[in-house]
Amino acid sequence: MVFFLATTVTLSAQQISSPDENLTLEFELQENGVPAYQLTYKGREVIKPSSLGLELKDDEVSLVDGFSIADTVTSSFDETWEPVWGEEKEIRNQYNELEVILNQNDTDRSIVLRFRLFNDGLGFRYEFPQQENLGHFIISDEKTQFAMTGDHTAFWIPGDYDTQEYDYMESRLSEIRQHMENAVTENLSQTSFSPTGVQTSLMMKSDDGLYINLHEAALIDYSAMHLDLDDENMIFESWLTPDVKGNKAYMIAPSNTPWRTVIVSDDAREILASKMTYNLNDPIAIDDASWIKPIKYVGVWWEMITGKSSWNYTDEYSAVKLGETDFEAATPNDTHGATTENVKKYIDFASEHGFDGVLVEGWNIGWEDWFGNSKDYVFDFVTPYPDFDLEEIQKYAEGKNVKMIMHHETSSSVRNYERHLDTAYQFMKKYGYDAVKSGYVGDILPRGDNHYSQWIVNHYQYAIEKAADYEIMVNAHEAVRPTGIGRTWPNLISNESARGQEYQAFGGSKPNHVTVLPFTRLIGGPMDYTPGIFEMDISKLNPNNDSHVNSTIANQLALYVTLYSPLQMAADLPENYMRFMDAFQFIKDVGVDWDESIYLEAEPGDYVTVARKEKGTNDWFVGNVNGETPRTSKISFDFLEKGKTYVATIYSDAKDAHYKDNPQAYKIRKVVVNNRSELSQRSVPGGGYAISILEAEKSETRGIKKL
Amino acid sequence: MVFFLATTVTLSAQQISSPDENLTLEFELQENGVPAYQLTYKGREVIKPSSLGLELKDDEVSLVDGFSIADTVTSSFDETWEPVWGEEKEIRNQYNELEVILNQNDTDRSIVLRFRLFNDGLGFRYEFPQQENLGHFIISDEKTQFAMTGDHTAFWIPGDYDTQEYDYMESRLSEIRQHMENAVTENLSQTSFSPTGVQTSLMMKSDDGLYINLHEAALIDYSAMHLDLDDENMIFESWLTPDVKGNKAYMIAPSNTPWRTVIVSDDAREILASKMTYNLNDPIAIDDASWIKPIKYVGVWWEMITGKSSWNYTDEYSAVKLGETDFEAATPNDTHGATTENVKKYIDFASEHGFDGVLVEGWNIGWEDWFGNSKDYVFDFVTPYPDFDLEEIQKYAEGKNVKMIMHHETSSSVRNYERHLDTAYQFMKKYGYDAVKSGYVGDILPRGDNHYSQWIVNHYQYAIEKAADYEIMVNAHEAVRPTGIGRTWPNLISNESARGQEYQAFGGSKPNHVTVLPFTRLIGGPMDYTPGIFEMDISKLNPNNDSHVNSTIANQLALYVTLYSPLQMAADLPENYMRFMDAFQFIKDVGVDWDESIYLEAEPGDYVTVARKEKGTNDWFVGNVNGETPRTSKISFDFLEKGKTYVATIYSDAKDAHYKDNPQAYKIRKVVVNNRSELSQRSVPGGGYAISILEAEKSETRGIKKL
Repeated sequence: MVFFLATTVTLSAQQISSPDENLTLEFELQENGVPAYQLTYKGREVIKPSSLGLELKDDEVSLVDGFSIADTVTSSFDETWEPVWGEEKEIRNQYNELEVILNQNDTDRSIVLRFRLFNDGLGFRYEFPQQENLGHFIISDEKTQFAMTGDHTAFWIPGDYDTQEYDYMESRLSEIRQHMENAVTENLSQTSFSPTGVQTSLMMKSDDGLYINLHEAALIDYSAMHLDLDDENMIFESWLTPDVKGNKAYMIAPSNTPWRTVIVSDDAREILASKMTYNLNDPIAIDDASWIKPIKYVGVWWEMITGKSSWNYTDEYSAVKLGETDFEAATPNDTHGATTENVKKYIDFASEHGFDGVLVEGWNIGWEDWFGNSKDYVFDFVTPYPDFDLEEIQKYAEGKNVKMIMHHETSSSVRNYERHLDTAYQFMKKYGYDAVKSGYVGDILPRGDNHYSQWIVNHYQYAIEKAADYEIMVNAHEAVRPTGIGRTWPNLISNESARGQEYQAFGGSKPNHVTVLPFTRLIGGPMDYTPGIFEMDISKLNPNNDSHVNSTIANQLALYVTLYSPLQMAADLPENYMRFMDAFQFIKDVGVDWDESIYLEAEPGDYVTVARKEKGTNDWFVGNVNGETPRTSKISFDFLEKGKTYVATIYSDAKDAHYKDNPQAYKIRKVVVNNRSELSQRSVPGGGYAISILEAEKSETRGIKKL
Repeated sequence: MVFFLATTVTLSAQQISSPDENLTLEFELQENGVPAYQLTYKGREVIKPSSLGLELKDDEVSLVDGFSIADTVTSSFDETWEPVWGEEKEIRNQYNELEVILNQNDTDRSIVLRFRLFNDGLGFRYEFPQQENLGHFIISDEKTQFAMTGDHTAFWIPGDYDTQEYDYMESRLSEIRQHMENAVTENLSQTSFSPTGVQTSLMMKSDDGLYINLHEAALIDYSAMHLDLDDENMIFESWLTPDVKGNKAYMIAPSNTPWRTVIVSDDAREILASKMTYNLNDPIAIDDASWIKPIKYVGVWWEMITGKSSWNYTDEYSAVKLGETDFEAATPNDTHGATTENVKKYIDFASEHGFDGVLVEGWNIGWEDWFGNSKDYVFDFVTPYPDFDLEEIQKYAEGKNVKMIMHHETSSSVRNYERHLDTAYQFMKKYGYDAVKSGYVGDILPRGDNHYSQWIVNHYQYAIEKAADYEIMVNAHEAVRPTGIGRTWPNLISNESARGQEYQAFGGSKPNHVTVLPFTRLIGGPMDYTPGIFEMDISKLNPNNDSHVNSTIANQLALYVTLYSPLQMAADLPENYMRFMDAFQFIKDVGVDWDESIYLEAEPGDYVTVARKEKGTNDWFVGNVNGETPRTSKISFDFLEKGKTYVATIYSDAKDAHYKDNPQAYKIRKVVVNNRSELSQRSVPGGGYAISILEAEKSETRGIKKL
């Protein structure tokens, strides 16, 4: 082959603006035909010129340079769609688009770069049209750059192929390297890859007050993206999760990558309110979604998490062989949580207090050796322990108008789960289960693969789509972080995919953790954080566990509003709720699905205050979570309907409350409010407040003070 | 930990003999508590003292030494069982057993070595009882030795984790190393591991005339065993197939390894007649096996193998995405084999000549890019090409009393196959298919795993057992070599798992290949070799293919008798059979299931002559295949029922026949025979003969000469 030195370099720049013209995206070909883009917001640089490209395996040329622009197409789009569940009744999807068709002349190949510029940010992706010279190909590296303009403050967790369950670090970009070792705390499955590798969604703040969030949307049949930082030049580059062979993605044209997203604003609240991630996903793929319903639930779970009771039925076996090990003959350990009797208590409690569902973990055989053994046939998903009378429980729950919620721990034995998936879903339908919490604890089987590689991402999607066939809602834990797929597949009703409340029983999380999550993990979709812990001293549940929940009760209540999820648990034990029934009232009252959400105050790591209007009602709920520093929140109730009167019940931290020393000190007061009311409310370290605002007739407000 | 130096070494020897006392097995603990065994036959050493043991991963001590004998138990067993299909109506399972219970004192662990000594050989395995200190464990190496007594002649193929499709090499053990490079011929998926690594079943002959065969039985949930030769000391050691992590087997006690087998005799015919491999497998696991029926079939296959026609429907696409690629819109390539019209021709032919079934490959979408691309979603197993009218074909076949045989090429995309397995089997049942030929061409997905690792062995078994649930017979190609599992799961009606006839169209196999297969590949179970090729000049089918079938027509006929399988194909095209209808008559007549089999003559690499009595009849069939050297076979018909008269039709090589120059020269003669008859029959290089011996009334023999 003869190479010609290019004597004329065509440097073509293309530009689009966001509908509100605040954002500008510029595309150009750099020297040697390297594609690049840059982004500005209100005239300020957000992303400096950043190159784009893909390295292909066993390909001399790759898709990184040698491109020329064959054509560019600009267009505009504006639609409004109604989510099955969500923070808003309607979501506007409005953007201007730039499609750049690039030819690589040496290889006679063509790719498309598609940029969508919304008022809240930028989404772009690589597309591979059907063509002669690009059929099957393997992406060995994606070289998408995000060049930062300075040494921003970042809220980050270590890049990892297997877990997202880290406490957030807050540091300058230049300090990531020095904090990395401390940031990588222990987990049952973890694989970090770089001293400057971090996960998305990554939240940053520039010194000049820009809030910048990097993530991805519509992660389908591709590996999850991390970001690796060149901390001399402050340039992030995409770092895809490899499979066991080190490959990042196996592609067949026509196809495309997920969207790479940059949400940006000078107002932190707008980051939280952004619906861009959903908008970049396909419309709903389910014809009739009437069976998808938000759920508020309790469950036999926190007692195992704290070590008060056990998932396993017996302590006799060091190794269980399903189908061979005889559980009828085993001696029960007397700590098993999922007993018929115990489950009935939860059903009674759920029924009495109006909860929709009861989750039970540890109901099915196999928990004696469920992780750490690279065990293939670890669960069969249909066989209860001898002390769990499934039919009796179902009958009992039905009689009490409560839905049982299924639990499928896969132990990351993915083949085993797929082998049993049809049977397990059919079993659920037979016994009237509508929703399943699935789990992926421990190292992945097929062995050597990773939680966020293309193959395993493909599995999570398979489980969701197959569940949709059976009209089953999925709440997947330890699965890949969501990327707005809930728009297309709303039966993915929630995810964990971050450090959830359980870590408060594993040594504790940072008190400001819940002020970061809305800016990071929740950008991609709802989180089953499992709020509502009232007893912060875990040793009260289990004398051998001295963990402390770094949160006040008021903070816990606020989470039902600040951490959006159409599936919310009241995670603590019924007996703990019984001790604080006045505070528990908020959990009973709070909505799980919304017509409107208004972010009132927000600063990552410090505080989030949001007001939400419950679906189909005139009732509002407000939540405020606060970080380490005591703070007085000031909000207006101008979101209320003009001329109407409401009774607000304010659940706040007591003056002397503190997440560490005095977490159970709260104050409840009832006041009358209208849309001219204003509130000044102090939140303590790790504290917050929650307000229910119920529309009231004048007669109902008698004797209640105005705010 | 403190280690004590053992000051007294207990050297205990235990001994058992075979029921006929020809074989003697001795077990002893060598120094340092290393288990060892040795085997003699008629007073001659077969296996010299050979050590036994297992290396465990992440285990300081492993299971290789430090053992003491806790107990030994000897017992005898004798049963006769009836196989669903087979070479015999009844099989005797008679052995003396030695069970050695070993304690490893340093670790307080216990294992069992179980030896079963039959008249035809030895089987032994490791067992791991349920116990406190051995639950989950990973076998990193199995150290089972087979110490040979000298530099035997071996019939071997290279050890390989992914293919068995090699031509057999015949050499001294000491010469394996020098021939290895030539032995490793090209394959679509292959991974060899050692210059002295060979596969089982391995056939050997000692200078003093002992025939020794090493293999394994009941390979369930374990990796396939190869043998690695220490060619200075002539000691073979087990070499298990690793997974992607290099691990050999993931075990949970209680459990066991497969049986390691040594079949031995001073008469080569007894190696072929041995049923020890089946006897070491569990009895049938299927309650009602009446739906399992031997099958003689034709198919749309050889025309693709030779390149005369194609599996794929179009040449338009370099990459197909199932569910997206539009085949209705594609331009057909006009070479597609699986068209409705062509299939009907085969159905007509099958019906006219009394065949049970018609196989069609290339009927379903996806063959445009079916291998070499590491493609995950390669086939869906239910969607026909536009020119294959499945319902029409089913109706047509039914009207002609012919069963269609399903084809599932998986391209080794194992997860994809498992995901579609239920749907694919249900589809088969819906359309009346009773049997499926499955294929595993190309590299395994999950990527990095191997065809014969524990995980993938587990998959083949899963596919077989699930097929049994649907009453489906499986004929798996490229799957792991069989190890007698057909006793337990007789719906595994055949396998390829060796170099089949197809290689005669890929450049040719050695003319004596079929004289080796019965001593090697067939030890573990039937082979779908696909005999019956009449046109040896492949360029007559496809001008671009100059391959030559190294076999005479008489040799091809003999294969129906010499290569036992309850599923036999007449592999050539109908038009080739039409040209030789007199020879084709044998294929029409020959049985596929047997009441009795008598190996009349045998020498590996040289010749095999066998007589078989067709099930439920008084008809016999004889086959002789011959290697490179012309030879006159001398057989007696004393196996015939005394006093009865038979008409024998002898299909033999013409005098001037030769596999290379004159393969289609054959002679057919009819003679009257009885149990005193004797035959002297010459077979040419790559030749042979076939005889049908049908019981006749006196009147029917008029005008036919006596032999």
